[in-house]
Amino acid sequence: MCSLVCGCITDFFTYETTKSVVVKSWSVGIINRIVQLLIIAYFVGWVFIHEKAYQVTDTGIESSVMTKVKGFGYHHGHVMDVADYVFPQQGAGVFCIMTKLIVTENQFQGKCAESAQMFNCSTDADCNNHFGAIRSNGVITGVCLKPSNDSNGQCEIEGWCPAENDSVLIEPMLDVNNFTIFIKNSIRFPLFDITRGNFPSTMKAEEIARCTYHPETNPFCPIFRVGDVLNYTGQSVASLAEKGGEIGINIEWKCNLDLDIEYCIPKYSFTRLDAPFAKNTITKGYNFRFAKYYKTENGTDFRTLHKAYAIRFDVMVTGNAGKFNTIPTLINLVAAFTSVGLGTVLCDVILLNFLKGADQYKAKKFEEVSEAQIEASIAQSPGSQQSFKPGIKSSYDSGAISLTASDQPV
Amino acid sequence: MCSLVCGCITDFFTYETTKSVVVKSWSVGIINRIVQLLIIAYFVGWVFIHEKAYQVTDTGIESSVMTKVKGFGYHHGHVMDVADYVFPQQGAGVFCIMTKLIVTENQFQGKCAESAQMFNCSTDADCNNHFGAIRSNGVITGVCLKPSNDSNGQCEIEGWCPAENDSVLIEPMLDVNNFTIFIKNSIRFPLFDITRGNFPSTMKAEEIARCTYHPETNPFCPIFRVGDVLNYTGQSVASLAEKGGEIGINIEWKCNLDLDIEYCIPKYSFTRLDAPFAKNTITKGYNFRFAKYYKTENGTDFRTLHKAYAIRFDVMVTGNAGKFNTIPTLINLVAAFTSVGLGTVLCDVILLNFLKGADQYKAKKFEEVSEAQIEASIAQSPGSQQSFKPGIKSSYDSGAISLTASDQPV
Amino acid sequence: MCSLVCGCITDFFTYETTKSVVVKSWSVGIINRIVQLLIIAYFVGWVFIHEKAYQVTDTGIESSVMTKVKGFGYHHGHVMDVADYVFPQQGAGVFCIMTKLIVTENQFQGKCAESAQMFNCSTDADCNNHFGAIRSNGVITGVCLKPSNDSNGQCEIEGWCPAENDSVLIEPMLDVNNFTIFIKNSIRFPLFDITRGNFPSTMKAEEIARCTYHPETNPFCPIFRVGDVLNYTGQSVASLAEKGGEIGINIEWKCNLDLDIEYCIPKYSFTRLDAPFAKNTITKGYNFRFAKYYKTENGTDFRTLHKAYAIRFDVMVTGNAGKFNTIPTLINLVAAFTSVGLGTVLCDVILLNFLKGADQYKAKKFEEVSEAQIEASIAQSPGSQQSFKPGIKSSYDSGAISLTASDQPV
Repeated sequence: MCSLVCGCITDFFTYETTKSVVVKSWSVGIINRIVQLLIIAYFVGWVFIHEKAYQVTDTGIESSVMTKVKGFGYHHGHVMDVADYVFPQQGAGVFCIMTKLIVTENQFQGKCAESAQMFNCSTDADCNNHFGAIRSNGVITGVCLKPSNDSNGQCEIEGWCPAENDSVLIEPMLDVNNFTIFIKNSIRFPLFDITRGNFPSTMKAEEIARCTYHPETNPFCPIFRVGDVLNYTGQSVASLAEKGGEIGINIEWKCNLDLDIEYCIPKYSFTRLDAPFAKNTITKGYNFRFAKYYKTENGTDFRTLHKAYAIRFDVMVTGNAGKFNTIPTLINLVAAFTSVGLGTVLCDVILLNFLKGADQYKAKKFEEVSEAQIEASIAQSPGSQQSFKPGIKSSYDSGAISLTASDQPV
Repeated sequence: MCSLVCGCITDFFTYETTKSVVVKSWSVGIINRIVQLLIIAYFVGWVFIHEKAYQVTDTGIESSVMTKVKGFGYHHGHVMDVADYVFPQQGAGVFCIMTKLIVTENQFQGKCAESAQMFNCSTDADCNNHFGAIRSNGVITGVCLKPSNDSNGQCEIEGWCPAENDSVLIEPMLDVNNFTIFIKNSIRFPLFDITRGNFPSTMKAEEIARCTYHPETNPFCPIFRVGDVLNYTGQSVASLAEKGGEIGINIEWKCNLDLDIEYCIPKYSFTRLDAPFAKNTITKGYNFRFAKYYKTENGTDFRTLHKAYAIRFDVMVTGNAGKFNTIPTLINLVAAFTSVGLGTVLCDVILLNFLKGADQYKAKKFEEVSEAQIEASIAQSPGSQQSFKPGIKSSYDSGAISLTASDQPV
Repeated sequence: MCSLVCGCITDFFTYETTKSVVVKSWSVGIINRIVQLLIIAYFVGWVFIHEKAYQVTDTGIESSVMTKVKGFGYHHGHVMDVADYVFPQQGAGVFCIMTKLIVTENQFQGKCAESAQMFNCSTDADCNNHFGAIRSNGVITGVCLKPSNDSNGQCEIEGWCPAENDSVLIEPMLDVNNFTIFIKNSIRFPLFDITRGNFPSTMKAEEIARCTYHPETNPFCPIFRVGDVLNYTGQSVASLAEKGGEIGINIEWKCNLDLDIEYCIPKYSFTRLDAPFAKNTITKGYNFRFAKYYKTENGTDFRTLHKAYAIRFDVMVTGNAGKFNTIPTLINLVAAFTSVGLGTVLCDVILLNFLKGADQYKAKKFEEVSEAQIEASIAQSPGSQQSFKPGIKSSYDSGAISLTASDQPV
């Protein structure tokens, strides 16, 4: 009984390793080592050092952005401050700085003539064609309002009157150039529970109050001059203030947490976001309408409509953090080890086909067994069927015996 | 001296390849090739062609969304335009179109009766129970205001008076159906520095001004009719305008940058975002309150409170871009090659257990060495200990010699 | 003809398996199995069970957040409700609750004295130094306004007058503590098309109306008391209301979609977002300015400027979902299998160097072929060059024959 169990245990605790053929040939040996060297160099240099394949990466960055604009501009004879020109006012990550306002004062609900040229008319029929128009300033009633019977007129609209005339020429507020944007960005990598702010906590209040961001001389200052930001995108206030535009302020966090946390710092870049639409005149620029509502003494609502051309700033935070982790390391190490082994595929091709004595090498590498041989072997020694133990050695022995026996001329 | 160094160098530039047993058996040979074929087909078809495992993927899409709504609606006897019904006004990616307004005009700070039915009372004690209530329209003072001593009354509140009564029936603004939303979306894949807009730059201004999005006939038009968007989500204005709702407009960018950049185009889809809450009456719909503030002649503040039911649109941009890269390609190729090799595991099981002549195959494949043999070998030829060179060949030779020597009946 | 084609086909349908050496040694056998066990345990326990490497993960969560604040607070002798203290009003995922207001009433455009101490002056020259200042309340004109010739004065500004004086002491609105925030969050995993809401659809309206979130007793209630939220971040209303602050409400969705969908539930966590800036006095807290605009009877614009200190809440939704997928499973299984094989590298080192009889093992494992042998073999039997078939067996046979032939003293 023990012998069976013991046998099984003995069989289990064996060690199986591949039998190898060692080819002592300079040509294939050198090729082999060069191929292995190239593979190792690739893995060490590119996969591990450059691509940091030994790290696990957290791309789910959590970010919070607070902004504050400062500066004064003259527009419509008024001095405008931050409460006047920034939308929305609560310092969000996406905000607009108004550069030009078309103001239509004292609009009351009623009926009046449309202002846009595309709605001029000579008869009511002309206006009926515009029923349901959405590019007008109100609902088209179908009536053509004419100063006199002979002249041309404008279609009548129902809505807030008088209608806005947005074709007036207004000087944009170029003072925007000197406005400053303060950006406070705190991020967190949830996987590693790392929290960082976009300026060092060692930076003093006075330093922050006085500095201005510059990519080389002041890369950690969180205060950005609007004119500078536009310059970095290759734009100027003059070109943007007239029609408005969209500017992206990208804060990129690429953190290698295997190094000291102090190296986990933001990198700013600036792009013009509406660049893909630059060729389309209709979609160029950025504007929106808003109204301020008032009441007359007797309680009638009226409003002042503003069409605001603005520069919109999108503070976009991207980033990832990497840290050593066993799983990617192991998977890539296994890939590396296995790849080194793949070098033999190439060398085998050379060895077994192009080298002098290829057939001899083939003969050494491959040991052939055909069904015929196996059948012959079974027929010859039926007793060996029930024992696995004797193994190849005994079969070789018997082979040697039979050969010597039959070949001997004794 | 040289001989030692030369020997080491010679030893280093050797090539080691596994010794293989080639089994010339139709059954196991066919199984082997079929298994290999399946594995290769899986990797080529699924992993490489379908899943594009040879690409590196950028999922950190940067996106900027600008929206503009157009259209007119009648509500409370007024014609409402975009400045009246869109919140926030600056054309953000998340915006609301108001569909129903409950207006409470001329609220002044003071004390007055609560309007909601849950705050009716017969004594002050009833109102004391409501101390600290947050569902009232103001701070509960604990007083029960009654028209006469006999009748029931309403608890008194302190705050903006008169209290809002939001149980009035108001016809929603169904004109929303014909409003149009213009969406301008520019994206960037930072890893590849690719910038794209959601409509082709070759699209002319007039085309954009006139078109309406349709998934089949006009998939690149950036102008969406609200009624259509609601239809795509299986909703109608009639069902949403009363209580409000949340609609997601998803712009999906799936870009294969190995192809021409012109194939990197957006795909729109539309969902009702508050669908998971459809069963809960309290949480159904979408509404919010805002106020317009006025001053009387003598400087007293008063306001008009608006409870706005609205359809909120969330323009959500998702996407990823893939491009050929050596690292994933290599890792997956290694995985593929190694997997092909794993086919032998299955074939070995068949060969060594289920095939006729399994033991013979075992004998061919496995060469057994036991500790006893090694010890015997050491004892027999102690001289062979210091030389590695003779290797297996010499040990075999000696084995052959001893066998022939002892077995020969000479 | 057939024989050639048939031969090729026969050659193709062969099965090649590595020839192995089975070492029957207890020491190396046990080491081998232990190493294999450790590798398997690592893969099963860590890679598969803990890291779920068999799943494909969707990290591109789509999320929509709707919020609603309720509660009343006393400030400046007014009762403030949600329309007064929440910005923006439309229930966005990022919103502010105002805690302190510095109100500057009845500002008209004009010229007046600056209020801040840093702009006091004795001569116009002092004010000229401040030209272009952006921390003032308006544009510095360069004039020093003095009550009398002897006394000190303040620089004159042009803009909205009177200038804001934000150094007044105002009691913050501590009632914020009892305000409640209702959060409605619906998410979608686009890869698996799974939609979930942040509270169970089985939750009744009355339950939701009455409950308050608590991490242990009520983890699914979507209503959060502001005081509780601040407590969870280690803050108190008293510390935040004075200067404002930023609080992150993180909703984390970690869904294992191989389990029932009902286990896909949110987990809330709360952080103080401006924590990285806590040391900087200038950047501590959170405030912004906004204005309410009015018109006098004769049409002159005036405004009331508000500097609002607020607690900003950022509802940030993160998460990922995993589901079984064949590709990662296969890649990791291959990595696992291959890694088990790598155990032989260690065992080979032990076997061939440190075990008794290492040289004998080496001799068994390695079969050496040198160029000299191959050349000798070619010279000896030139006929064997054109036939591959005889293979290693025949070469061994011939070796055995030659040996016996030459060694026999017959």
